[in-house]
Amino acid sequence: MSESKYKFLFISAFCLPDDSPFSGPKRGEGIPKEERLQNYQNVKHLLADVDWDMHPGAMTTYGNWTVENRQEFLYAAAGRIPIVQEACESGKYNAIILEGGGEPGFMEARELTRRYGIPVTSCGHSQMHFASMLGNKFAIIDFSDVHTMFFHNLVVQHRMTDRCASIRNIGYYHSKPHYKDAESFSAERRKAMAGEPSEAVERAVSEAINAIEEDGADVIMFGCSGSFWLKPFVEKRLHDEGWEVPVIEGYGAAIELAKIQVDYGVTASGLAFPGDRPKKRPRKIVF
Amino acid sequence: MSESKYKFLFISAFCLPDDSPFSGPKRGEGIPKEERLQNYQNVKHLLADVDWDMHPGAMTTYGNWTVENRQEFLYAAAGRIPIVQEACESGKYNAIILEGGGEPGFMEARELTRRYGIPVTSCGHSQMHFASMLGNKFAIIDFSDVHTMFFHNLVVQHRMTDRCASIRNIGYYHSKPHYKDAESFSAERRKAMAGEPSEAVERAVSEAINAIEEDGADVIMFGCSGSFWLKPFVEKRLHDEGWEVPVIEGYGAAIELAKIQVDYGVTASGLAFPGDRPKKRPRKIVF
Amino acid sequence: MSESKYKFLFISAFCLPDDSPFSGPKRGEGIPKEERLQNYQNVKHLLADVDWDMHPGAMTTYGNWTVENRQEFLYAAAGRIPIVQEACESGKYNAIILEGGGEPGFMEARELTRRYGIPVTSCGHSQMHFASMLGNKFAIIDFSDVHTMFFHNLVVQHRMTDRCASIRNIGYYHSKPHYKDAESFSAERRKAMAGEPSEAVERAVSEAINAIEEDGADVIMFGCSGSFWLKPFVEKRLHDEGWEVPVIEGYGAAIELAKIQVDYGVTASGLAFPGDRPKKRPRKIVF
Amino acid sequence: MSESKYKFLFISAFCLPDDSPFSGPKRGEGIPKEERLQNYQNVKHLLADVDWDMHPGAMTTYGNWTVENRQEFLYAAAGRIPIVQEACESGKYNAIILEGGGEPGFMEARELTRRYGIPVTSCGHSQMHFASMLGNKFAIIDFSDVHTMFFHNLVVQHRMTDRCASIRNIGYYHSKPHYKDAESFSAERRKAMAGEPSEAVERAVSEAINAIEEDGADVIMFGCSGSFWLKPFVEKRLHDEGWEVPVIEGYGAAIELAKIQVDYGVTASGLAFPGDRPKKRPRKIVF
Amino acid sequence: MSESKYKFLFISAFCLPDDSPFSGPKRGEGIPKEERLQNYQNVKHLLADVDWDMHPGAMTTYGNWTVENRQEFLYAAAGRIPIVQEACESGKYNAIILEGGGEPGFMEARELTRRYGIPVTSCGHSQMHFASMLGNKFAIIDFSDVHTMFFHNLVVQHRMTDRCASIRNIGYYHSKPHYKDAESFSAERRKAMAGEPSEAVERAVSEAINAIEEDGADVIMFGCSGSFWLKPFVEKRLHDEGWEVPVIEGYGAAIELAKIQVDYGVTASGLAFPGDRPKKRPRKIVF
Amino acid sequence: MSESKYKFLFISAFCLPDDSPFSGPKRGEGIPKEERLQNYQNVKHLLADVDWDMHPGAMTTYGNWTVENRQEFLYAAAGRIPIVQEACESGKYNAIILEGGGEPGFMEARELTRRYGIPVTSCGHSQMHFASMLGNKFAIIDFSDVHTMFFHNLVVQHRMTDRCASIRNIGYYHSKPHYKDAESFSAERRKAMAGEPSEAVERAVSEAINAIEEDGADVIMFGCSGSFWLKPFVEKRLHDEGWEVPVIEGYGAAIELAKIQVDYGVTASGLAFPGDRPKKRPRKIVF
Repeated sequence: MSESKYKFLFISAFCLPDDSPFSGPKRGEGIPKEERLQNYQNVKHLLADVDWDMHPGAMTTYGNWTVENRQEFLYAAAGRIPIVQEACESGKYNAIILEGGGEPGFMEARELTRRYGIPVTSCGHSQMHFASMLGNKFAIIDFSDVHTMFFHNLVVQHRMTDRCASIRNIGYYHSKPHYKDAESFSAERRKAMAGEPSEAVERAVSEAINAIEEDGADVIMFGCSGSFWLKPFVEKRLHDEGWEVPVIEGYGAAIELAKIQVDYGVTASGLAFPGDRPKKRPRKIVF
Repeated sequence: MSESKYKFLFISAFCLPDDSPFSGPKRGEGIPKEERLQNYQNVKHLLADVDWDMHPGAMTTYGNWTVENRQEFLYAAAGRIPIVQEACESGKYNAIILEGGGEPGFMEARELTRRYGIPVTSCGHSQMHFASMLGNKFAIIDFSDVHTMFFHNLVVQHRMTDRCASIRNIGYYHSKPHYKDAESFSAERRKAMAGEPSEAVERAVSEAINAIEEDGADVIMFGCSGSFWLKPFVEKRLHDEGWEVPVIEGYGAAIELAKIQVDYGVTASGLAFPGDRPKKRPRKIVF
Repeated sequence: MSESKYKFLFISAFCLPDDSPFSGPKRGEGIPKEERLQNYQNVKHLLADVDWDMHPGAMTTYGNWTVENRQEFLYAAAGRIPIVQEACESGKYNAIILEGGGEPGFMEARELTRRYGIPVTSCGHSQMHFASMLGNKFAIIDFSDVHTMFFHNLVVQHRMTDRCASIRNIGYYHSKPHYKDAESFSAERRKAMAGEPSEAVERAVSEAINAIEEDGADVIMFGCSGSFWLKPFVEKRLHDEGWEVPVIEGYGAAIELAKIQVDYGVTASGLAFPGDRPKKRPRKIVF
Repeated sequence: MSESKYKFLFISAFCLPDDSPFSGPKRGEGIPKEERLQNYQNVKHLLADVDWDMHPGAMTTYGNWTVENRQEFLYAAAGRIPIVQEACESGKYNAIILEGGGEPGFMEARELTRRYGIPVTSCGHSQMHFASMLGNKFAIIDFSDVHTMFFHNLVVQHRMTDRCASIRNIGYYHSKPHYKDAESFSAERRKAMAGEPSEAVERAVSEAINAIEEDGADVIMFGCSGSFWLKPFVEKRLHDEGWEVPVIEGYGAAIELAKIQVDYGVTASGLAFPGDRPKKRPRKIVF
Repeated sequence: MSESKYKFLFISAFCLPDDSPFSGPKRGEGIPKEERLQNYQNVKHLLADVDWDMHPGAMTTYGNWTVENRQEFLYAAAGRIPIVQEACESGKYNAIILEGGGEPGFMEARELTRRYGIPVTSCGHSQMHFASMLGNKFAIIDFSDVHTMFFHNLVVQHRMTDRCASIRNIGYYHSKPHYKDAESFSAERRKAMAGEPSEAVERAVSEAINAIEEDGADVIMFGCSGSFWLKPFVEKRLHDEGWEVPVIEGYGAAIELAKIQVDYGVTASGLAFPGDRPKKRPRKIVF
Repeated sequence: MSESKYKFLFISAFCLPDDSPFSGPKRGEGIPKEERLQNYQNVKHLLADVDWDMHPGAMTTYGNWTVENRQEFLYAAAGRIPIVQEACESGKYNAIILEGGGEPGFMEARELTRRYGIPVTSCGHSQMHFASMLGNKFAIIDFSDVHTMFFHNLVVQHRMTDRCASIRNIGYYHSKPHYKDAESFSAERRKAMAGEPSEAVERAVSEAINAIEEDGADVIMFGCSGSFWLKPFVEKRLHDEGWEVPVIEGYGAAIELAKIQVDYGVTASGLAFPGDRPKKRPRKIVF
């Protein structure tokens, strides 16, 4: 079998110890990558021509629960960058894909990997750009208030405010100590996967339609990677009801944007993400 | 040999009769597609996994010279749409790539092909989106005043004004009756290809650097497809001088954006490009 | 009687064969111009000091029904430009007014007529500028989904997105083969003209008020010229209810904007719409 | 002779006592209106079909020199509004034209005159809208630093920042006590009128070209009405040099915009400029 | 007791004669400043370290009722500027605070006081900047339609449109001759102060929540100073209901922004508000 | 002596081990706070009424040199947040001031400290808001290419792109292993402090003037805190030359913005920086 032109490393945003009582990506040494990658079935066909590895990510340092607020994202970012650097230095990959919707460490990784000539993609940035190609305005389906406002920061940082119709919050949370709301969203996923009615699906469809009718959205994407499983459910429901909108999730978008950068032989601009001592310098930076 | 997952049709923006004294794409029945596709060497590797055909485009109706001004673009667009429709109806392609920098007929083709579930990409739109993924602001190297202002319209239409640092005009023209400036730009290409000094390359490099230093550009792209040949020359020169900017041309960008839409199974949004009688309708459209 | 200082040619967006079963402008050789011009009564007083002719437009090439989607607009544009050129060359007119709300061929006509020193106006562009003088944000009353999204493109192209509160779709269609919705909107017009209750008027008033209350509109205009007849009905109803908003339609706005360009002796800027070989060139174009 | 449909009152921004040693509009009782109206020759043809009067404006209260800074503009505005009200109440006019580039009292006058159903136009607002119809971006030729920054405020207030390429300051001042720069700009006008070389014309042409080449301007307009005399000189020079840009001044623009509002039977929107107790109210105002 | 580093003069927007039957600031010679300053209890602690005087403002010239529409604001502005100038010349103050939500004369005062090196602050501008530090978008609670649209002008002038979620009109008016709605809003204040239910508080809370839920507001501020008394009531209600938004009023914001300018030794930029004959001049002004 | 109402903790962005050969903030146990705080003399008067402590910051984990690129900023942020949390929990402070121009950890700190009702300010955000109060557009004087582009991200994140004229890079670097440019910028500071000519001052003045003349700046601020020492030198030079622009540095701005939040009793909005389980939630977030 011929070698793939794509050699990708997925890096999880973080991992929890195996004995964590909370849902989220576990360390899980030895688990096959296909089982590790969230919603693998949704992107399997996109990986058919890719040689890929998966790094379980750095163990969380702030506790044994899933990243949700800005502080937790910061620690996750700091934990992930050394893995990115190691991957660049290994010479084994021609692109890196950062898992996780809130893309902890993405801007730092763009700066770092560009120096090695290796593109890096991430789920928020990739979805926003993919969606922008397809329509006028995208809506983001997300959950957890603190996460939605962190995602708001990402939309601003990526200069996508005039392409973003709204972020719609479907009102769930990640499980976390001291809160009783813990497992509900995971339960919704299980129900949907089992073909049972799922309140989370209902809310996501409802907010997607609100975003279309009230906010001007014409493409639907997702915020937290914990919600990417909703993609086929929401897509089917919207299409069945006659709303002809593309529905995007983050892993597929990130894979595709990595592929085209590898194909085309480019990475982020060295003027946007310069090296420590670039050969040339514009004296002024404008907006 | 296995069948490719990509079945693309390139459609030339227009063609000139073989006896036209002016430079531009000729009808040239029987010429192999690899010879027809402008600057094939630059995108050859991107087509390695694609089954592709090439349609020579509609014969120009306004005269026997190359499209340059808005009226000529309009006639070219009107000539191309029936070819797009025929291609959709043929069932032979899963994506259509419109040749030509000024993308005549692109908006109409998006509306049309979406109804068949077939994505269509074009050189201006694709470059702008590709460039936006890589940096903060792109500059467009173009020539012919009337073409640069037509391209200005495209940047506005694609809502890329805050991503576009500037359009830089290097001061050549397409050959046309009654003007003596006729063949000069084609001559520049020949010189550059032959390894000789080329004034067009010098000007393009100079304007790219001006765009970086004065206008805030950090990615370089091209306007008219007649200038795409400059890509490797400008890229090498900028990189040699220490300007670490991605340099994009249109055919490669359009091929790549077609691939990811095919992979992901999406086209333009049906809310942005609705059918004549869509099943669902938002009552208000906002910006 | 003294000669008017205004010598205008109206050019219909297109015409249908007289035997077309669909509503829309018919070829109608020999019909007096006052009967041809849609809603002549609404603009009669604006034409009192104008010498005007009316060209029936080019026969549609795509079929015998009214322009509605982007492809049909493209063909209408291509059909109209030769008429514009002929009018310029005739030396008989000092301004050209393009009929039709979606203004097929307007950008091309601006480029073309400027070379003759002749201004051209059109119904979308004129209404947007007229409305901008009078208030902060205009709303557009329109119908036919595909037309509203085409009109969305016009708002973007004319860089009026921050002046446009919304486009409000009142949910009718042009008559077209294979669709049963055919004649309903024309019937609404007849009812309104006869002083009977008209669902179309109700919807237009209702959406105008929604645009005022929800979207921030303070001026009302119309999209498709097929809806211009609504102007006096909507205006009266809004004023009667106490909403003191200007209500604009396209023909009057286009006549007025043509007059002031003739008076002032100007046309579109030659830098925005340059000739094929302008004497002077700015090296960079910014946004 | 038939009565004109236009009955306009021009109101000077202010007047100086006849014995003021400073240049500027003098009270000058009994002077014919044609001599009073600045640069009457430039707009004479636009007034041919207008019945017009001219009000000399209120005597300045802050001193006997021309309005230049924001405080002086404020006092001029307060002086002018009662004249506007009196004109409305007189029933003699169907439009009011506010003289003066910096348009003191314009926003207040729009609010006031709308209640009488009378449109009011002014030189900054009218030029900006007229210019926007013709091109992508206008540049403003102005003088006196404090005036240019006051004009900056007007551009912002009229929401024209993305249509304004730049304000270009040609470096003169109005004459004022305690400053020796007094009469120079008036002298430049006399020289130009006499066919002699004028430094002011040179600077205006030079800054217009800078605005075109560096700032993206494609239409030229003027700030202070004291500079409107430059219009034909700048226009001729730019056209002679091959720059095909419209050149606009304020009086003509204000006359034309008044005409079309009278023709069309509209004034400013009552939602933008409501009455003290409007019949209907939107609960929210958005931007 | 040591001398304060802050020597502030408050200047009322205007005053009414003591015998005016309408509510609003009365001339009231001899009334202690603490009784004069609206809602003194709300800002008392901010003035503890300030030496402050209060000027009753200029007597209204247009009538004996409170400023509400643009004309009235203009006359109030013209009345206030001489007081500002006198205060600057007195040498007694190191900052001036303009009372009144609609800030009549603020731009003129910035120009004027800067020449004396004295900062001036005002209630709209200060609230908008204070709010911008704390959140993404502020909503403005206001009343009186004509005032809300005047306030709209202020938001535009201060270039805060993308920070302003909306202006929400709670539907009261100032008392004025010939209108029966006279005293109602003042009555609402008395009720609220007495601990009784107040419809005005209800409406303000309701519109604040609408602004949060529908318009994206995350900070609440007020328009007319006549509504500043609502601050503690709205704040308490929102916080009690779980809406964790800062609620700002104008006097406190203006005091604080004056303090930091005094501390830091700065005023408005001399390039934004130049002197009549500045030493240095930029040749172009951009936006 | 009475207790101050301000109890502030300064937290250094990071510290280097005492034996680091590179310039930057050293751990320096026992060094008085007045010697630790960079350019204390510039802000001494602003701290006269403040009880303040200073935390030396977390020891860098990536090496013994100063933060310069995005990765280093990330690690610094992750090191600082626990110190912020500890300070909040200590109950000793009513505001926290983050040292360092690039404000590592600021967004996370806003989220964190708000939950304790404690405001936090930082040098970039504070300067941008302070500058926005004073003028139309600020320019940022900065150095080190990678730092300038990191600062570009901050300007975008704080939604200040339309207030920022430009970032001007004066071409120095922080000292770092393997680069010979090490100590030059520190040497410039020593020269300037000693009253000797300093190339860094010259470049900063020159770029400030370029920003004023070319980019439209009317307020000057600084990027990296390592450049804050330039403030009095640049200010004096600009004022001496007649450029009447406010010149701001970060520590003073951050102190002042902390004071007014303490005075007013507010912090960042809880809707912008929600808690993990807020009591109320807006279902949609818009931009």
